[in-house]
Amino acid sequence: MNYIDLDKTNSFKTLSACKPYDVKGLTADRIKKCNVNGAKGFVYNYACMPVTDEAVSAMQALADEMDLIAKYKALLSGEVMNTGEKRMVLHQLNRGECISSVPKDKSDFYKSELKKIEEFSSDVRSGKIKGSTGKAFKHVVQIGIGGSDLGPRALCYALNLLNVKKLDARFISNVDPDDAFGVLEGLDLEETLFILVSKSGTTLETLTNRDLVFKVLRDKGITNPKAHMAAVTSETSPLAKEEGILKAFFMDDYIGGRYSSCSAVGGVILSLTYGYEVFRELLDGAHAADMSALETDITKNPSLMDALIGVYLRNVLDYPYTAILPYSQPLNRLPAHFQQLDMESNGKSVNRFGEKVSYKTGPVIFGEPGTNGQHSFYQLLHQGTDIVPLQFMGFRENQGALDTMVQGSTSRQKLNANLVAQIVAFAKGKEDKDNPNKNFEGGRPSSLIVSERLSAFSLGQILAHFENKVMFQGFIWNLNSFDQEGVQLGKILAKKVLSGCEGDENLKAFADMLI
Amino acid sequence: MNYIDLDKTNSFKTLSACKPYDVKGLTADRIKKCNVNGAKGFVYNYACMPVTDEAVSAMQALADEMDLIAKYKALLSGEVMNTGEKRMVLHQLNRGECISSVPKDKSDFYKSELKKIEEFSSDVRSGKIKGSTGKAFKHVVQIGIGGSDLGPRALCYALNLLNVKKLDARFISNVDPDDAFGVLEGLDLEETLFILVSKSGTTLETLTNRDLVFKVLRDKGITNPKAHMAAVTSETSPLAKEEGILKAFFMDDYIGGRYSSCSAVGGVILSLTYGYEVFRELLDGAHAADMSALETDITKNPSLMDALIGVYLRNVLDYPYTAILPYSQPLNRLPAHFQQLDMESNGKSVNRFGEKVSYKTGPVIFGEPGTNGQHSFYQLLHQGTDIVPLQFMGFRENQGALDTMVQGSTSRQKLNANLVAQIVAFAKGKEDKDNPNKNFEGGRPSSLIVSERLSAFSLGQILAHFENKVMFQGFIWNLNSFDQEGVQLGKILAKKVLSGCEGDENLKAFADMLI
Repeated sequence: MNYIDLDKTNSFKTLSACKPYDVKGLTADRIKKCNVNGAKGFVYNYACMPVTDEAVSAMQALADEMDLIAKYKALLSGEVMNTGEKRMVLHQLNRGECISSVPKDKSDFYKSELKKIEEFSSDVRSGKIKGSTGKAFKHVVQIGIGGSDLGPRALCYALNLLNVKKLDARFISNVDPDDAFGVLEGLDLEETLFILVSKSGTTLETLTNRDLVFKVLRDKGITNPKAHMAAVTSETSPLAKEEGILKAFFMDDYIGGRYSSCSAVGGVILSLTYGYEVFRELLDGAHAADMSALETDITKNPSLMDALIGVYLRNVLDYPYTAILPYSQPLNRLPAHFQQLDMESNGKSVNRFGEKVSYKTGPVIFGEPGTNGQHSFYQLLHQGTDIVPLQFMGFRENQGALDTMVQGSTSRQKLNANLVAQIVAFAKGKEDKDNPNKNFEGGRPSSLIVSERLSAFSLGQILAHFENKVMFQGFIWNLNSFDQEGVQLGKILAKKVLSGCEGDENLKAFADMLI
Repeated sequence: MNYIDLDKTNSFKTLSACKPYDVKGLTADRIKKCNVNGAKGFVYNYACMPVTDEAVSAMQALADEMDLIAKYKALLSGEVMNTGEKRMVLHQLNRGECISSVPKDKSDFYKSELKKIEEFSSDVRSGKIKGSTGKAFKHVVQIGIGGSDLGPRALCYALNLLNVKKLDARFISNVDPDDAFGVLEGLDLEETLFILVSKSGTTLETLTNRDLVFKVLRDKGITNPKAHMAAVTSETSPLAKEEGILKAFFMDDYIGGRYSSCSAVGGVILSLTYGYEVFRELLDGAHAADMSALETDITKNPSLMDALIGVYLRNVLDYPYTAILPYSQPLNRLPAHFQQLDMESNGKSVNRFGEKVSYKTGPVIFGEPGTNGQHSFYQLLHQGTDIVPLQFMGFRENQGALDTMVQGSTSRQKLNANLVAQIVAFAKGKEDKDNPNKNFEGGRPSSLIVSERLSAFSLGQILAHFENKVMFQGFIWNLNSFDQEGVQLGKILAKKVLSGCEGDENLKAFADMLI
């Protein structure tokens, strides 16, 4: 396989020489031409991205020269792609088998865990499994941090308006005790089930929050708090053998935290909240996107096209960030999840061989839902001194049943009219010579993902689209996108602070201010 | 007054020539020396910012040369600082009189509105004012967007664990009908009071959501929905004279949306939720910070020092973003508010005279609370190819009453140990020659704000600190920080889409995909 740095490829030189397309020249023909179709109406449109046909050809050549699809297939077939930690990378396998040569034993393992999730969630939702005082569970609280929190939380929020029987889902993540305090306040704890999520079973924040929760449960007269807890952990962790808990679900080392939303990490809480069928639909949507990502023709592969354009923006046009802007309130925490997914995967300076790369890697990711962002930071996006590439998302239909006609249009029509308006406003601008503060330069790049409706299926597609985009970009930058050594130093120093700073004068001086 | 572009000043040339301080050389002495003190234990520490003593002198010279304090006093005294819209800028006045020469009539107006808020909130909280079916109000839902949402929401969330009688506060902002649907679900609407916030009384998103809410109220048998609604608007708006609503509170043109959290826009919901005394304490904290901002010596003026260092980072060292990282879960939406505050105020390309500036202005702002962010995007902050300046916040004590000892330390100690550890890890790094993927280069700049406890008072200080930082940076960049013409084009085009695109082929092509 051709594991090579981006700047050593021929096609990147070609791509770098491509003059950007001026999106101020946008036409309807271009908009119609620049659709990349996924399954069941999923579309990635790049009409407002500054890429010419020539650049698209150069990106195709780059994809071919770097063996991107072959690398993806190698990953799917169980090659050790997490080179730093010497692990396979199998989060796609959990959703379905994309190629025939997958590690079958792992596939069987994931299937058996899904089966456990199906049964357990069904028994809790039916009231067969009850709390220790005999009450059915109405609330589910996940205790986890990072990948055990952001993805599951974003997905849980995203499906809140589905017309299915729902349990109330909440999340405790921060070691700040004010987090648990705020979440537990007002809950009937006799009716509350906790899901403890920690692969190693040793995550200090999570264990601390578990003990904090146990303390509160005992204070409220629940003498056996373990009977209110399930765990998601690895088979070798201390939690796996914990006696007295309701159930232990297993994950393994081949699904990294930020890629684990479709494993038991997200699956248990999603299945408890909305039913296993909804979770299964999410997996199916993600699997469909994983299949689309196998296509070698980049004009038929949404996540690969998105990845390549992102590299053009980052490494040729030198933009240091991307904004993620879903026009959908239920997706309000999806930008935070994609922020982790992208920045933790590709925010790195050495390649998979440990050599310092001489080009920029992962950008800063941020975002909020539209239309909210329009009344907030869009000012800078339109008229600031820097250009920020934008990634829009929209849906033709509402998720919930509520809508109304005001001044001749529904809320949905208003929402989507705003989305359409923004894309065109950013691209074309509007000259105002008399009032320079009302002048819009335009030429500001964006892409658009469209789906029919925010369902579990389309949510799974969007999730996997971004995971695969990040994976392809990791291949292009020749990184290991699957470890996160950058989080270790802080952990070590935090322990040092807790044991008295051990003579480190800087730690001591700041600790004196704060502890 | 010396209204001059940054690059025309002598002291900016001096500042630009200052070699950055290498924060890898951090010492305890420097940490202790770099405190800028506000009132009642508020501290801004810049030890880990790349500024030498020489740079601090140059920044002082810049502040003097640009008359920054005189400009602030001019603003306080009612000079027309919002030059684009020809308006005074009086959000500080609402909190208290900082100098003697304030516009007294405006001061009286703000005081009379505060009095109205005090009485109304007291009557609702005591049950004297009830819903139309005779039930006391238990829930308060604010309907507003942008400045009518982000600031009030962030402040409301931030005080959630105070030990006072609380009403349940929620927010509807997005024109996406799924927003209102999700918020209203499960509420007893007979016990719910709505606050409609729109200065003009014509904000389409907000009026649409009002009508959507009215529809739901009527569907639930509440025949007189107006009896469940108060309004915050300008005296000249159509809403001001709306008959049958519970109460109308007034704002004026001299407090911009993103600066309006301390006016009735934030005051009504905060007073309803926590009581007027808590809101008054917030105003007092903000006023204290406004007073600190009058100090000409930058080493005694936290917001001015913060502003100047931000300009050094942006215009000398060329960093395009800043991350806001509060180590406090109740502050989870404060970064989103500061994102609006900063990016909408200073994301501009022309100076106050309408001339294009030839330097960078406001940066991209993003952030999430610690410790959550540590398990997410900090990977890139530590080891990415770009450097992101960081703005940390910490508190010595919890807001809520819950805490526990696990493995020898409380949650609070763990939280703050992590904060201390991160600051030092970013500054000093850690060399690992054998494992390049475990190498931390360090030299990554940060600042730290410390307060004793997240109270209404300290929250007010933090809010005003950032408002004043943004104001000073606007003066330095010679901008009008108080208008937002960049949001207008999208509004015009959205209307065009709703009326059939009027022959605009680009709007039409995207509308065909979405509407």
